[in-house]
Amino acid sequence: MDFLTSYQQRIAVSLSTLNQGKSPEGLYAPIDYLLALGGKRLRPVLALMSCEAFGKDVEEALPAAKAVEVFHNFTLMHDDIMDKASMRRGAQTVHEKWDVNTAILSGDAMLIQAYECLNNYDATQFSTLTKLLSKTALEVCEGQQYDVAFEQRTDVRIDEYLEMIRLKTAVLVGCSMQMGALVGGASKKDAELLYQFGEHLGIAFQLQDDFLDTFGDAATFAKRIGGDIAENKKTILVHLARQLGSATQIAALQDWFDKAPSDNTKKIAAVTQIFKDTTADTATLNKVQAFTQKAFEALDKVALSDEHKQRFYDFGRWLMERTH
Amino acid sequence: MDFLTSYQQRIAVSLSTLNQGKSPEGLYAPIDYLLALGGKRLRPVLALMSCEAFGKDVEEALPAAKAVEVFHNFTLMHDDIMDKASMRRGAQTVHEKWDVNTAILSGDAMLIQAYECLNNYDATQFSTLTKLLSKTALEVCEGQQYDVAFEQRTDVRIDEYLEMIRLKTAVLVGCSMQMGALVGGASKKDAELLYQFGEHLGIAFQLQDDFLDTFGDAATFAKRIGGDIAENKKTILVHLARQLGSATQIAALQDWFDKAPSDNTKKIAAVTQIFKDTTADTATLNKVQAFTQKAFEALDKVALSDEHKQRFYDFGRWLMERTH
Repeated sequence: MDFLTSYQQRIAVSLSTLNQGKSPEGLYAPIDYLLALGGKRLRPVLALMSCEAFGKDVEEALPAAKAVEVFHNFTLMHDDIMDKASMRRGAQTVHEKWDVNTAILSGDAMLIQAYECLNNYDATQFSTLTKLLSKTALEVCEGQQYDVAFEQRTDVRIDEYLEMIRLKTAVLVGCSMQMGALVGGASKKDAELLYQFGEHLGIAFQLQDDFLDTFGDAATFAKRIGGDIAENKKTILVHLARQLGSATQIAALQDWFDKAPSDNTKKIAAVTQIFKDTTADTATLNKVQAFTQKAFEALDKVALSDEHKQRFYDFGRWLMERTH
Repeated sequence: MDFLTSYQQRIAVSLSTLNQGKSPEGLYAPIDYLLALGGKRLRPVLALMSCEAFGKDVEEALPAAKAVEVFHNFTLMHDDIMDKASMRRGAQTVHEKWDVNTAILSGDAMLIQAYECLNNYDATQFSTLTKLLSKTALEVCEGQQYDVAFEQRTDVRIDEYLEMIRLKTAVLVGCSMQMGALVGGASKKDAELLYQFGEHLGIAFQLQDDFLDTFGDAATFAKRIGGDIAENKKTILVHLARQLGSATQIAALQDWFDKAPSDNTKKIAAVTQIFKDTTADTATLNKVQAFTQKAFEALDKVALSDEHKQRFYDFGRWLMERTH
C-alpha cells in the first residue's frame, strides 16, 4: 500500500487549488476549510487506482477523483448540520465555526463544484460521468433520508438497513471506481464490475464501522468506543440483536435505550454484553465477511491480469483488517 | 400574451410527474409540494419561447425548462430556511411544514434533479447545457452570499448591489433563454444575445420589485406594501437614498433602521418620504428603464425576424409595465 500516501498527496494538492482567487470569501472559505481537514480520501484514491489499472496515467482520473471527494465533503457539511455535530476530523464543523446558513449555502456550492470538476472531459465522457454522479448523488440523499426515518422506527428489517447503508455509503465508493475505470478506458462491463466491487466493499466497510464503534481497539479507533450505544444509534448490531435476541434480551436492550445516564459506562457495558449474548457481534462479522467476499468475487470477473488486480485485493484486505 | 397560460400549464403538468413512483416519500414529497405551489414560471416560459423562436417545437425545450424551474425552486427551499421565512406563495414553507433537516435534504435532492432533467439530450447538447447550468448555479450561490454579506454593511456601492442582483436573480433568467435558444438550434452568438436580453431584463425586474414593494399598488401587489422597510431590507431604494441624500436625510434613514416599532405604519410612511425626498424613487425607475432598454438592445441584435422578436418585446413590456 506504498502508493497510498503519494495518491493522497496528489489529491490534496489538487483540492487545495479548487477555489484559488474566487470570491466571495464567505462562500468559498468554508469549502476550502473542510477540504483541508483531510480524511483518508479513500474514494478518490480508488478512482485513481481504477484508472491506472487500465493503463492510463492517474492524472487523467484526477478531475473525477476530485468530483467524488468534493461531493463526499458536501454530504459531510450538510449531514453535520442535520446531526448537530460540533466536531469533524478533530476540528469544528463548518456550521459551528461559521453558522448554519453558511454551511447550507457553501454546501450547495460544493455540490455544484463537484459537477464542475468533470467539465474538462470530452462531451461523451462528460455525459457518462455526470449522469453517474447524478444517479449516485440522488441515491446518497435517499440513503440519508432512510437513515433519518429508521432512527424513528423499531421495526427496521436487516435488508432495509443494508439497503440504507448501500445508498448512503456504498454507491459512492462504487461510483468512484466506475468513474476511474471509465476514464482509464475500461469496457462498460469491467467498469460495472469495479462498481460492484466498490459497492460491496463499501457495505462491508460500513458494517465493520458499526462493529468497531463497540468492539474496536480503544487505543487506536478514531472515535470513542461505545459512542453509538451512548447516542442510541440504530446500528447493524442493534438490528441483529433485535432479530436474534429473546424477548427478554430485546426488552433489556429497549430499557437501556430509554435511559440517558450522565455517565454512560454502565450502559455501554450492558448493551455490549447484550450484543454478545444475542450473537449480534459474530453475526455482524459474518456479514462483513460475506460482503467482502462478494466484493472479491466481482473483482475476480474483471478482465485484468492478476498482477493488476492484486492492488485491489490488497486494498480491500487492508481496509477490512483494520481493528480500529 | 395568450400563449402564457398554455406554456405554464405544460410546465406544470411536466413537473407534476417528476417524482412519480419514487421513494422514500420523506425525500420526494416536500419537492412535489413546493413545485405544486405554482408561481409565474417565468424562467421556464422564457426557455420554451426561446426554443420556439428558432423554429423547434417547445416540447424539445421542456426538459431544459424543467431544469431551470427545479433549480429555481431548490434555491427557494434553501433561501427560505436561511431567511426563516414561514410562508411561500401563500402556503407554509417546507421547513415549516416539515422541518429544517427535511428542507436541507430535499433541497439537495432538487439541485441534483435539476441536473438530471437534462439527461435525455444528446452528449454534445447535454455537455453544453449542463456546464451552463453549473456556471449559473454557482453564480446564484455567490449572489446569495453577497446578499447576506451586504445586509451587514452600510457602505455597499450601487455597482456592488447591481452585481449582487445580477448574480442572485438575473443570470438564471439569461440561462433559461440561452438554454431554450440552444435547444431550438440558435447560433452560439444568438443564444448569447438572448442570454443578455434575459440577464438585463432580470436586473430590471428585480429593481422594479424593490420599487413596487414600497411604491406598488397595495390592492394588487402580492406582498404587503412597505414589507422591505419594516424588515430593514437593503434594497436599491436604500442604497440610492444613501448615495443621493444629504447627511441629515441619511441620518434620519439610519434612525428609522435602528427602530423596530410594533406598529410599522409611521416607519413605512417616514422612510417612503425619505425615498421621495432623496429622489431615490425616480432614480430607481431610471435604472429600471435603463436595464429594460439594454435588454431590448440585445434583442435587436438577434438574427430573428421582427415577427419572431415581437413576442419577446411584448413579454418584456408586459413584465415591466406591471404596477403590482
